[in-house]
Amino acid sequence: MSLKRVGIIGSGNWGTTAARVIAENVQNLDDFDNTVKMWCFDEKVNGESLVKIINTVHENVKYLPGYPLPETIVAYADVVEVCNTCNYLVFVIPHQFLEETLKDMIGHVLPGSVGISLIKGVTFLDGEIELVTDTIERVLKIKCGSLMGANIANDIANREYCESTVAFPNEEIGNDWLRAFDCYYFHVERIQDIVCQQVCGTLKNIIATAGGLVDGLGLGQSTKAAIMRRGFVECYKFAEWYWPNRGVKIETMMESCGFGDIVASSYGGRNRKCAEYFVKTGKTFAQCEADLLNGQKLQGVLAAAEIYRVLKKKNAIKLFPLISTIHLIDRMKCPPQTIFHPDGEHLDIEVD
Amino acid sequence: MSLKRVGIIGSGNWGTTAARVIAENVQNLDDFDNTVKMWCFDEKVNGESLVKIINTVHENVKYLPGYPLPETIVAYADVVEVCNTCNYLVFVIPHQFLEETLKDMIGHVLPGSVGISLIKGVTFLDGEIELVTDTIERVLKIKCGSLMGANIANDIANREYCESTVAFPNEEIGNDWLRAFDCYYFHVERIQDIVCQQVCGTLKNIIATAGGLVDGLGLGQSTKAAIMRRGFVECYKFAEWYWPNRGVKIETMMESCGFGDIVASSYGGRNRKCAEYFVKTGKTFAQCEADLLNGQKLQGVLAAAEIYRVLKKKNAIKLFPLISTIHLIDRMKCPPQTIFHPDGEHLDIEVD
Repeated sequence: MSLKRVGIIGSGNWGTTAARVIAENVQNLDDFDNTVKMWCFDEKVNGESLVKIINTVHENVKYLPGYPLPETIVAYADVVEVCNTCNYLVFVIPHQFLEETLKDMIGHVLPGSVGISLIKGVTFLDGEIELVTDTIERVLKIKCGSLMGANIANDIANREYCESTVAFPNEEIGNDWLRAFDCYYFHVERIQDIVCQQVCGTLKNIIATAGGLVDGLGLGQSTKAAIMRRGFVECYKFAEWYWPNRGVKIETMMESCGFGDIVASSYGGRNRKCAEYFVKTGKTFAQCEADLLNGQKLQGVLAAAEIYRVLKKKNAIKLFPLISTIHLIDRMKCPPQTIFHPDGEHLDIEVD
Repeated sequence: MSLKRVGIIGSGNWGTTAARVIAENVQNLDDFDNTVKMWCFDEKVNGESLVKIINTVHENVKYLPGYPLPETIVAYADVVEVCNTCNYLVFVIPHQFLEETLKDMIGHVLPGSVGISLIKGVTFLDGEIELVTDTIERVLKIKCGSLMGANIANDIANREYCESTVAFPNEEIGNDWLRAFDCYYFHVERIQDIVCQQVCGTLKNIIATAGGLVDGLGLGQSTKAAIMRRGFVECYKFAEWYWPNRGVKIETMMESCGFGDIVASSYGGRNRKCAEYFVKTGKTFAQCEADLLNGQKLQGVLAAAEIYRVLKKKNAIKLFPLISTIHLIDRMKCPPQTIFHPDGEHLDIEVD
């Protein structure tokens, strides 16, 4: 059997951190090549090529400064050079660049290649949803799983204890990915349910917003836990409802991608923080973003709007009263306190 | 059909709050008598009988001061006067008084009576465990369910939004209890699994200790969520392992008694707080209790010690590595950081 070789498609903060974890792990795995190839968008940093810097200084000075990288990580400016020499592909680019990057790879992927997505979010289009793994499988015709969980790139780079979940329907390949990622500070477990896992990765941002609303109202931990719990249940129900017969399992909610990610996001992170500020200041979310986020967009507010559109198209607002209510609160169609009575008449409001 | 009548066995902070919720609810329920009888240990408050004060001033000035009670709540000094006139009995006394109170009731309980336990904890005896509902069923020969969740008496007394879970194997009786408790600020859902529910009510204090250890180490939300998640999983596995064939369901973990209570306790409450102080000061837990708790005992530390004894007796330490490790940390047999690697060799340490 020839060796497996990992290629990282992306080289941002999380991509570089993942490359580092994998590069250290594969040194001890007999069936993996020691080299990890990393596709890197070749921008200039202080007039010099980032690819060249990574390959000479062995540090991603732009996206993971201060962390030495093993010399076995080799950066490439051309994605084709990575995918036509690596058969284990890690996708870790911002969602908006996915489709064009995949197009560049068509026809250059090695036979029998497999992928894993570390990309947050799903694709929303006209009230329909496509999972990132489905997009990759559709475009490249390779099997693709995903890794999601309460993992923050810099914590992992600092070797602080975090967890994550590998989802791959095929057990053998899933275990390959598990071995590539799992290490003493990054505890990874494997499941088969790629659907519920990716749904939690998207909807957790909405639940985190709700956690921030409760914080903004100045209420206690029991009230916050109650709202988070309702959100936790709706995440699971949404996966089951939108993708019936795709192996959605309640057990997935007990994994890092479920419980871990929802809890961590609802107590930390910018969705929670902005929602608290939203309640306390009475400003719109657009203003809160402008005040706090330095040009970034709030994932939870965007996701709530998109999910609301999906529910509306399918006449299913009342099946997911909490998520729908969060969107109506975000849009200032009802006050934050409405969150405590998500089944009320406000759900009949007309909102686009 | 004759009317159901609720009797509250206990009149502390939570008992009085529960009596108030129920007394308000039954006014609107045709099949319940409007009167709620409450057994009250008749201590003296400023030289006067607490029973008399409650029945004249309509306030529990000792345990729920400042909250007017409906006149339909009537206090009694003799538990027999409550149980021989009420067929829906709410048990809400400190665990250490349960057995003697039940003995006083033997022979005086109305035929066909049903109970519900709001009592935290389980009975530990020589490495064996008895659920509170099982104790009540054994002594009084009545069917008994329980109500557990992330509900803090004073929050509910203030009509702040909280949740809870009624567990009763019999659907009809369970729904009676649901109607007695559920109201607009106290959201109650019903399940049948009384085992997992009560296990979570006990083990959540251990997980909360772990949450406090992570806080004490100064680590972030992802790390904390990862440890809580492992504890969440062990709660479920413990219920399934100790009580096979008693209807333990993973769905129970998604209820307020599971997710809600574990999350709320790990972010609020005294177990979390003392564990944080334990790490930061390096004092023993006995010293931390003395410093912070005004004579009270830490439930999480006690429960961890008892569960460890159960696991040791059954040679099952390694089936529950996190809970076992928490006990060893509590006892200072290994440092707090061991929590990140609960499967290690420290589990072979001899501890009683």
